[in-house]
Amino acid sequence: MLTIAEYREAIVDYLHQKIQVKEPVNLYEPMVYILEQGGKRLRPVLVLMAAEIFDCNHKKALDAALAIEVFHNFSLVHDDIMDDAPIRRGKKTVHEKWDINTGILSGDAMLINAYQLFENYEGDVFKELSKLFTKTAIEVCEGQQYDIDFETRDNVSIEDYLLMIEYKTAVLVGASLQMGAIVAETSAACKSAIYQYGRLLGIAFQLQDDYLDAFGDPATFGKQPGGDIIENKKTFLYLKSLELASPGEARQLEHLYSISPMENTGKIEAVKNLFESSGAAELTRKEIEKYTDMAFEVLDRIDLPEEKKKPLKSFGKMLMERQV
Amino acid sequence: MLTIAEYREAIVDYLHQKIQVKEPVNLYEPMVYILEQGGKRLRPVLVLMAAEIFDCNHKKALDAALAIEVFHNFSLVHDDIMDDAPIRRGKKTVHEKWDINTGILSGDAMLINAYQLFENYEGDVFKELSKLFTKTAIEVCEGQQYDIDFETRDNVSIEDYLLMIEYKTAVLVGASLQMGAIVAETSAACKSAIYQYGRLLGIAFQLQDDYLDAFGDPATFGKQPGGDIIENKKTFLYLKSLELASPGEARQLEHLYSISPMENTGKIEAVKNLFESSGAAELTRKEIEKYTDMAFEVLDRIDLPEEKKKPLKSFGKMLMERQV
Repeated sequence: MLTIAEYREAIVDYLHQKIQVKEPVNLYEPMVYILEQGGKRLRPVLVLMAAEIFDCNHKKALDAALAIEVFHNFSLVHDDIMDDAPIRRGKKTVHEKWDINTGILSGDAMLINAYQLFENYEGDVFKELSKLFTKTAIEVCEGQQYDIDFETRDNVSIEDYLLMIEYKTAVLVGASLQMGAIVAETSAACKSAIYQYGRLLGIAFQLQDDYLDAFGDPATFGKQPGGDIIENKKTFLYLKSLELASPGEARQLEHLYSISPMENTGKIEAVKNLFESSGAAELTRKEIEKYTDMAFEVLDRIDLPEEKKKPLKSFGKMLMERQV
Repeated sequence: MLTIAEYREAIVDYLHQKIQVKEPVNLYEPMVYILEQGGKRLRPVLVLMAAEIFDCNHKKALDAALAIEVFHNFSLVHDDIMDDAPIRRGKKTVHEKWDINTGILSGDAMLINAYQLFENYEGDVFKELSKLFTKTAIEVCEGQQYDIDFETRDNVSIEDYLLMIEYKTAVLVGASLQMGAIVAETSAACKSAIYQYGRLLGIAFQLQDDYLDAFGDPATFGKQPGGDIIENKKTFLYLKSLELASPGEARQLEHLYSISPMENTGKIEAVKNLFESSGAAELTRKEIEKYTDMAFEVLDRIDLPEEKKKPLKSFGKMLMERQV
């Protein structure tokens, strides 16, 4: 097994080899631009780790890993257009640097390119990878649609929200791990279990992301906190607060989520106080713990020597402690 | 063999079965909306015809045919956003009826959905279909990019233009026919020849489309002629005129292509006169004939009884006479 940094390096090296600018340059330059920007490469690292865990050299899984990374970046390019986001990873988004049409078309080419990367696999492995990829990609689109729909819906339930983050974020984590397992040609039971580990960890991760957006330490979280509150985003914290709060507090929270003041400090503090006083903050911490525990239980039950599972467990722990 | 109308009906029936609105409805309604609008269904009809020609029941090819139709409509949805087109087939385009974000995301889901339709094929057939589809889809994106680039380039050569229409239009016609051949599991030589037939016919068709846009009879062509001239579109006619015209006429044509008058009748007439006087109109007619003849020669050389090839030849002839 390599270290996470070594896996990441292997992916970046492979990316340099496989994704290059060619004609027509206006189609391929944005692709290289976004893919070279870095990011944590968490998903492709998981593909390589999963392959090695099931006794397959990680090099065999590089195409699948790169496909996942290309797909993830495709979704960022199209989502950034939809969200009208000017900046991504400290740099201009593709549609800002070029234009919306370039973002649409380069994104399309990236989605197709991801499929192309599976072509080096033979027979059943190729079909299994393609099918899992298609299923996951459709779910990611559905998750994005639910997320958009929630902005204008006022009857979003906790279940709706959990399904949305499962589709938008968690299934791709599960699929990354399962792709490594598919390339390694391990058993169906192992493939399914490792998917579940990723899916549950992905839900825990996204819930934590929402939690830290309100309560995170700006020094370690890396973003200015309160972004979701400023944008009146219906996160788990918000939905749970509405459920738990007294009618008066609920009205107050709904009011705060209907305004967009120039100066947000007061609003953020008031909302965070309601998240705490309603008990939603505490309950969210418990929910994160619940999903994290479920993920590790699934991992524990996988029929593999402890030694093999250790890197995946460490990865999950690091993720939940935000060390990566 | 069925008639073209019967193949079309088989496709529409299958489409009704397979493409339905489900949750999240904002993702799937636009998909059903554009796919139910009709259109000529030329490409999926070609998939079914090709399958039958190589002794395979057309029903086996319905998934591949529908994949081609879904992909074609995906490209229309995204292209209409890029071209800012308000109307398609007499109805509002998806981004006009909903919004740009809906057009982007539903289009993405359609592209993924097209891949999903291949999953009913087994083993090598699945892989061959997926690979051909990916190669074709990438070329279609590249063709669209070249088309966009040409708008602001003033050094477009005839070769550039032919490559653009080959990628943007012709390869999908070739791929449609080849997919039928792949489903029928015919020989590699037949698969390759039928692709070439479609590709050459597709180039002839697009050149004719450009020609008719200037010189077509509005009663039979179905569009108001002169659209390309109004939009200063660098078609084969325009590029060939620049090449053949005297320096004075060339300057005149370039001037006409630099203006956008309120009233276009005079401009259209002047441009058409230059297309004729330069000899470009005549040469375009010859070029269309050349590609059509090449297509039929490829078809003649395919190792199949004449009887089998007849429907494909009739289809090609009808296409070039615009009866379909």
